[in-house]
Amino acid sequence: MAITDQQQAEISAQREASSPTRRATVPALEAMLFEARPVLDHGFVRVVDYMGDDAAVVQAARVSYGRGTRRTTEDAGLIRYLLRHRHTTPFEMCEIKYHIKLPIFVARQWIRHRTANVNEYSARYSILDREFYLPAPEHLAAQSSVNRQGRGDVLQGAEAAEVMDLLRGDAMRTYDNYAAMLNENPDGTPVDPDRQGLARELARMNLTLNTYTQWYWKTDLHNLLHFLSLRGDTHAQYEIRVYADVMLESLLAWVPVTAQAFQDYRLGAVSFSAPSMAIIRRMLAGEAVDQKGSGLSKREWTEMMQSLGRDG
Amino acid sequence: MAITDQQQAEISAQREASSPTRRATVPALEAMLFEARPVLDHGFVRVVDYMGDDAAVVQAARVSYGRGTRRTTEDAGLIRYLLRHRHTTPFEMCEIKYHIKLPIFVARQWIRHRTANVNEYSARYSILDREFYLPAPEHLAAQSSVNRQGRGDVLQGAEAAEVMDLLRGDAMRTYDNYAAMLNENPDGTPVDPDRQGLARELARMNLTLNTYTQWYWKTDLHNLLHFLSLRGDTHAQYEIRVYADVMLESLLAWVPVTAQAFQDYRLGAVSFSAPSMAIIRRMLAGEAVDQKGSGLSKREWTEMMQSLGRDG
Amino acid sequence: MAITDQQQAEISAQREASSPTRRATVPALEAMLFEARPVLDHGFVRVVDYMGDDAAVVQAARVSYGRGTRRTTEDAGLIRYLLRHRHTTPFEMCEIKYHIKLPIFVARQWIRHRTANVNEYSARYSILDREFYLPAPEHLAAQSSVNRQGRGDVLQGAEAAEVMDLLRGDAMRTYDNYAAMLNENPDGTPVDPDRQGLARELARMNLTLNTYTQWYWKTDLHNLLHFLSLRGDTHAQYEIRVYADVMLESLLAWVPVTAQAFQDYRLGAVSFSAPSMAIIRRMLAGEAVDQKGSGLSKREWTEMMQSLGRDG
Amino acid sequence: MAITDQQQAEISAQREASSPTRRATVPALEAMLFEARPVLDHGFVRVVDYMGDDAAVVQAARVSYGRGTRRTTEDAGLIRYLLRHRHTTPFEMCEIKYHIKLPIFVARQWIRHRTANVNEYSARYSILDREFYLPAPEHLAAQSSVNRQGRGDVLQGAEAAEVMDLLRGDAMRTYDNYAAMLNENPDGTPVDPDRQGLARELARMNLTLNTYTQWYWKTDLHNLLHFLSLRGDTHAQYEIRVYADVMLESLLAWVPVTAQAFQDYRLGAVSFSAPSMAIIRRMLAGEAVDQKGSGLSKREWTEMMQSLGRDG
Repeated sequence: MAITDQQQAEISAQREASSPTRRATVPALEAMLFEARPVLDHGFVRVVDYMGDDAAVVQAARVSYGRGTRRTTEDAGLIRYLLRHRHTTPFEMCEIKYHIKLPIFVARQWIRHRTANVNEYSARYSILDREFYLPAPEHLAAQSSVNRQGRGDVLQGAEAAEVMDLLRGDAMRTYDNYAAMLNENPDGTPVDPDRQGLARELARMNLTLNTYTQWYWKTDLHNLLHFLSLRGDTHAQYEIRVYADVMLESLLAWVPVTAQAFQDYRLGAVSFSAPSMAIIRRMLAGEAVDQKGSGLSKREWTEMMQSLGRDG
Repeated sequence: MAITDQQQAEISAQREASSPTRRATVPALEAMLFEARPVLDHGFVRVVDYMGDDAAVVQAARVSYGRGTRRTTEDAGLIRYLLRHRHTTPFEMCEIKYHIKLPIFVARQWIRHRTANVNEYSARYSILDREFYLPAPEHLAAQSSVNRQGRGDVLQGAEAAEVMDLLRGDAMRTYDNYAAMLNENPDGTPVDPDRQGLARELARMNLTLNTYTQWYWKTDLHNLLHFLSLRGDTHAQYEIRVYADVMLESLLAWVPVTAQAFQDYRLGAVSFSAPSMAIIRRMLAGEAVDQKGSGLSKREWTEMMQSLGRDG
Repeated sequence: MAITDQQQAEISAQREASSPTRRATVPALEAMLFEARPVLDHGFVRVVDYMGDDAAVVQAARVSYGRGTRRTTEDAGLIRYLLRHRHTTPFEMCEIKYHIKLPIFVARQWIRHRTANVNEYSARYSILDREFYLPAPEHLAAQSSVNRQGRGDVLQGAEAAEVMDLLRGDAMRTYDNYAAMLNENPDGTPVDPDRQGLARELARMNLTLNTYTQWYWKTDLHNLLHFLSLRGDTHAQYEIRVYADVMLESLLAWVPVTAQAFQDYRLGAVSFSAPSMAIIRRMLAGEAVDQKGSGLSKREWTEMMQSLGRDG
Repeated sequence: MAITDQQQAEISAQREASSPTRRATVPALEAMLFEARPVLDHGFVRVVDYMGDDAAVVQAARVSYGRGTRRTTEDAGLIRYLLRHRHTTPFEMCEIKYHIKLPIFVARQWIRHRTANVNEYSARYSILDREFYLPAPEHLAAQSSVNRQGRGDVLQGAEAAEVMDLLRGDAMRTYDNYAAMLNENPDGTPVDPDRQGLARELARMNLTLNTYTQWYWKTDLHNLLHFLSLRGDTHAQYEIRVYADVMLESLLAWVPVTAQAFQDYRLGAVSFSAPSMAIIRRMLAGEAVDQKGSGLSKREWTEMMQSLGRDG
């Protein structure tokens, strides 16, 4: 992770400050506030602000005037009911803001989630740091032979070494040429006074897609759960899933009741189609059903048997 | 305003609680937190939570690691620059949540703003209170004769009295019949044990559009400014503008620098079309221009002269 | 249904017009274009425009240059795969526009779907027609005793008659008083020249929530499916579900392959939580599981057994 | 522009097809439908579908049953009024869909517009073509010395030549290494049977940001105007502005009345703050005002004088 001493000092200063507030406050999330949790080789996730807690979901659902006097178990029951039945609007009443450092190709997947607020570091305005993602050896995976958008085995031996050399070499060279074209010292003076320097908005095009960028990213709890269910899924690309994993930790600290309900009803949930439900009912009644007698396509049958943990 | 003693007790309890937080905190907004500010005859606006402050706009714009060390005047200059040039994303990094009580016909205008989170009190699930909006005598306006969606003079004398009687009488009668059809005591038992009671989701249709409803409404600072610029405008209907006015007070307490820039560059701003700009330049050069020589339609010419404070 | 002769003439004129186009065209949907399908006692649904067809979903998914040469079964397989695995963006590439007449209390539920374009008839600008929804006797339901937001048995005898009288009487009286306060003839002249007439934006507050309004409503295919899955569900209020039912017919005419996949994988689908999946696997392995041994709450156990069609 | 023969054949086939439709049809836009208009060195813009026309804006604003019988000038007046007064919802009732080929760094700016539907060619699933953007010599600009996110003079001589060599060399080398790491022939067989080939989702990270991608992009007329006003502005980066320019041509063909109003009231419009308006009124009254007497900051004064076409 690449946090400079000055950046760390700014983070520490913010962590030391404390003010009294009448707002809902979550000590477990306060404990991790502002701290950068490392992700991949140079990335991080920092929670920089939040609004609301589990009780705020309940208050919104009841449109109530205060914290209320119901028992905790009653509130938890309501939250679990809301999440199970996809009553989503009360979860939109909590908000969280992250500062995230991530490779550009990950940022391009991430930005597809449109219901969030984003402020990205501008390479049109500023100069990007010399940081790029290189996979650890155990994540240097071959193309999957069965899934066009998935990974297979980890590359080995000479091929792995060559790939690492190519990735590292190209990232370093393109960055160095980016810097050369800019022709600009940190203080803004030209490196070579006889050159003008290419415009930043053009020079950036020479960078490779594993270059790190960073942004402030803010969303409500409902949309965060949607993001985590898609990007924390095993079908998501490893390089975005590790961000979702770290964000899931902040979810557990922030809204533990909602987080538990999310893990029960969303993360591990399986959806069956109407035809599949008919088959499950037949199987539970003791009937032996095979693919031919199921009416399902071979692909759907296989997916269904995998969900049920059976050979098929 | 209709706050019951129990509701006031819940509000007071929440106002008395205080916790330490590392988050950005705004004392002036904390001072008004949870309090219900009256609007119209039974409505109110309560700020129930917020995220961020003026400095959070600056931090997002700079994608910074901490509060930074720049001078306050530099931060204010940046905020004013961002607002003037419609760089909107940094303003999306602050969030505010209101609890609002409002007549249904106002709620129907309000809900057109789609980029907000809303949780409304459900008349399908609960029973609405016996509260409805009746205009004060000075707001009982006649139809405008020049603007199809505007107001003219205030009604006087017998007509005013009759209109008030009709509005009051119909609201009371339809509410009483709503209650009669529900046939339900506060404890859930039937008023008349020989009747079943009409379903709440059906009975509500008998209420008039001035019946009060309430909701939690949460939005980011950018969209709040957009809401205030439209609904705080003199063309907005009076009954929604009074809500915008009270919310503008919370804006001033919350983000004073942004609020000032908003008043300078947005509320009082006037936009001139390309053809209008050409005319203004001619006028500034000393030329006398009239409508015929302007190339503008009569309507556009009048609008332009009004903006310039001239007779035309 | 309340279509005037002049409105019907306008509809007919539009149906008679025909132009050649290079765009994707769906004859089955063209056949119903512009026609008003009656819903409830005075409402309707009209398809007034559309963009794309089943093939457009496929073209977007493949980012292709033309209609392609794949076999129809291959395209259908892709659509079913996309819908099953919630790859939603290709479905956003089709769009449909409706003209809908509906009671205001239904419109208030409907508008909660924010990802749509809406243009509603303005009661601030115009005068609403004398039309209000009155339930048919078989839909005049009592409050459910088990579900706070549901219906129970149909009201009978004297109670039914009294409720109908109250609903009809109040709607008629409040409308008549609305008209009286407006004091305006169809040609804009005053009914009583000695009165000014209350502003339209105020007079409308006297109308009851079963008064009919109308709007243009436009959305993409993905969000239409989401709307239909929520509002066509048995838990939705009857008065909005009947609109979803009619819109489902237009879906079947417009994109038959997508509509079939939607019915298989979405409408009839059941989702099981991680704990529920573990129980199903145990049951399929022959184990007898009861609620106590399940680890589920009584409510969740009942919901699960209902889904599996078992007594529990 | 890089359209293969097969792609051109698919485009031509689609252009030759014609069907009768009852929908609003715009011959001038039909004439350009599906054709790829070249942008930059390898990019293009193709209109692939549309919904509605100028009359559809009017119909939505009036919530009408048909095309109506008003005169054309009346409709044009209404459109101009709606656009001038920012009544935006009627413009949301038209929709357009583009197929666009563009460099990745342009796509990253573009995607910030969230109210659009997007389906991008997936480099996780497929292999990108060997195409990258290289600026024409007259667009190889130096960094601006006055605007941190702008361009200055065009690079000349040796520096220009070296920059071009670096950009071209790096793009070619990183693409070749991307292809080498993939180790995949067009038919899916390995180039070197002893290598596994890096997963596509990883290999893509070696590409530079000027590599071309493509997507289907669909939006409504209101959001298209917003996009064009921001990205067609002189402050927008040249490489995205050229796309906006080509899309403006399709706007003119599609909805000529709206396009004209957009050019008058939006593109060439200037907005003045409340303090600036006070100064303009003083100047029009004959007073000589200078920066010191204006109360404006030096920066704001300069911006204002530029808008008024005066030296200041």
